[in-house]
Amino acid sequence: MTAPTLALDLSPASPGAAPDVVELTRRVCDIPSVSGDETALADAVEAALGALPGLEVTRDGDAVVARTTLGRAERVLLAGHLDTVPLTDPPNLPVRREVHPTEGDVLVGRGTCDMKGGVAVQLALARLVADAGPGAPRDVTFVFYDHEEVEAAKNGLARLARNHPHLLAADFAILLEPSSAVVEGGCNGTLRAEVTTNGRAAHSARAWRGSNAIHAAAPVLARLADYVPREVEVEGLVFREGLNAVGITGGIAGNVVPDRCVVTVNYRFAPAIDAAGAEAHVREVFAGFDVRVTDAADGAKPGLHLPAAADFVRRTGTTPLPKYGWTDVARFSALGVPAVNYGPGDNATAHADDERCRTAEVEQCLEVLSGWLLEGVQ
Amino acid sequence: MTAPTLALDLSPASPGAAPDVVELTRRVCDIPSVSGDETALADAVEAALGALPGLEVTRDGDAVVARTTLGRAERVLLAGHLDTVPLTDPPNLPVRREVHPTEGDVLVGRGTCDMKGGVAVQLALARLVADAGPGAPRDVTFVFYDHEEVEAAKNGLARLARNHPHLLAADFAILLEPSSAVVEGGCNGTLRAEVTTNGRAAHSARAWRGSNAIHAAAPVLARLADYVPREVEVEGLVFREGLNAVGITGGIAGNVVPDRCVVTVNYRFAPAIDAAGAEAHVREVFAGFDVRVTDAADGAKPGLHLPAAADFVRRTGTTPLPKYGWTDVARFSALGVPAVNYGPGDNATAHADDERCRTAEVEQCLEVLSGWLLEGVQ
Repeated sequence: MTAPTLALDLSPASPGAAPDVVELTRRVCDIPSVSGDETALADAVEAALGALPGLEVTRDGDAVVARTTLGRAERVLLAGHLDTVPLTDPPNLPVRREVHPTEGDVLVGRGTCDMKGGVAVQLALARLVADAGPGAPRDVTFVFYDHEEVEAAKNGLARLARNHPHLLAADFAILLEPSSAVVEGGCNGTLRAEVTTNGRAAHSARAWRGSNAIHAAAPVLARLADYVPREVEVEGLVFREGLNAVGITGGIAGNVVPDRCVVTVNYRFAPAIDAAGAEAHVREVFAGFDVRVTDAADGAKPGLHLPAAADFVRRTGTTPLPKYGWTDVARFSALGVPAVNYGPGDNATAHADDERCRTAEVEQCLEVLSGWLLEGVQ
Repeated sequence: MTAPTLALDLSPASPGAAPDVVELTRRVCDIPSVSGDETALADAVEAALGALPGLEVTRDGDAVVARTTLGRAERVLLAGHLDTVPLTDPPNLPVRREVHPTEGDVLVGRGTCDMKGGVAVQLALARLVADAGPGAPRDVTFVFYDHEEVEAAKNGLARLARNHPHLLAADFAILLEPSSAVVEGGCNGTLRAEVTTNGRAAHSARAWRGSNAIHAAAPVLARLADYVPREVEVEGLVFREGLNAVGITGGIAGNVVPDRCVVTVNYRFAPAIDAAGAEAHVREVFAGFDVRVTDAADGAKPGLHLPAAADFVRRTGTTPLPKYGWTDVARFSALGVPAVNYGPGDNATAHADDERCRTAEVEQCLEVLSGWLLEGVQ
């Protein structure tokens, strides 16, 4: 490994204190790491963690895992992805720190919300955990991974689960995706399907010789327009579902009656059912039409009744909410590790041109997590 | 002009007879002339016509006009396009002559139907008219033009009308587009419009924050599906109309509620109304939606009551039919020249991979047209 271009400084802001996590967020953001281009940041993370005492550091592609090996009865895993969606043009980096009229002190720029605030919190926690040494009450695993914002086949967490499953073993996992510093439990699943109508091509000047596949899609769109999404309570949280056309294509040429129209629908389903149940529902909604499922991923049940999760929720002092978007929490759930989302940043600004994060939330997450992880440590 | 690679032989099949028009069709087809690549065929046509006595030949791009200048009281114009749609892969040329199970002796290959059978008939007629010399009862203009199968802006007939309007002056025009050797009068007009629905983009995991433009298109498709096309009688011919979606697009990404959906519709309207009337009708059908007309072309009234047209129809011994597809007959109509479609080939095989033409129709068209044009000539 070559020395990273930009080093990450995890030294305490003052003797015995945590690193300045807001400044750290800014630095993590200012090392651009659009999906597929995470190496510079992964190098910097690996170097910073490698310099801390008592952490076993593993590199896999552009994923980095650092873990304590104290032999404690309980292990907590904290995870976050290193990549971001593409920068804007002109680039929304370097980060600007400014006072927002309603949100107060914020960092503005690509990654500030999704999710380098969370990555900075993990790095600062790694420093505190390393400093605590054998006094820490729990073993901790920090996971930093690549390719979260792109197709699932490239996902760095999934790769880690294939290459190093033991590194992901834990009693409880916290994914630091933006959740406005509130615990979000579980997540909806997601399924995409193509609903296809067929017709018979003909010259549009003699349309009666053909059969129009786009016209045949009228009832497909009508069913979507009339569909009332369900709200499903799962383990005390109410998950809102959604069934939406996310694409439609049809047509051969400006003078041809089209013989095929494809409506791509996306069903976001509460974790009360799995992908098979979701498929059954979509097939029922579009009964009589040709339905082909193109991809599907189970959601995750909240699991907030499990002891480690309940203990953490109490510690945050917040009322848990359901997570609507599919997140890698579902991967942990599939691995048998109860997991929640808890991180700084309002998800509504994720991917936005003016992506931003309240600095108070970054500090709050660090405080809550360090207080819980290092409970009882002098 | 360089000598054409492939010459067209217009010599009589036997002394005093017409050229072998079936063999001529095959040769015209075997000089490929996909739109934009008509030069070799235009060269061959220009050379063949230039060798005939008594014809004034004009070249404009890849269009060729040949006309007698006998000072007769009546001038008839015969027109056909030289270009074809693209060849298949493997190429559907050279032409094969074979016996079709239901259609009998046919030529099979690109251009045989649309419309090199008609071009060959024109060339054979030019030979006969030249041979008749001053004995011909009518002046005749032969027009061969390029770029009919592509966008209207490139149309060779339209270019001739701009560059040499006097060459298109005539009392009556016959367009030799495939019509199964039956007179087809007038043609429907055509109008294309985009019907757009708008929504508000949102992540599909939180669809309630957005508004789905594809769902909003449900009533657009429903109106199309429910639409009953009109049948409109114009000057004794019944024109069937049609209103069809020929394209639909919408969607940003697989996880985004789309904010825009565009349905492209094509209205084929009877020549009882013009393009403005057609636009009014489309706006009425899609009242309440954003409608933008992208292109429109008037149709043409049949004009079969006009003396030259009526005389020709009588001569063919057929009952005229309405023309549903828009053809360049409408251009003549707009120039004030009554025009009909009359040519060999069943339009249903035009553009098809197994495009073909009954040889009997090619011979029949030549016989009917030569008999009419040279009536009374010894």
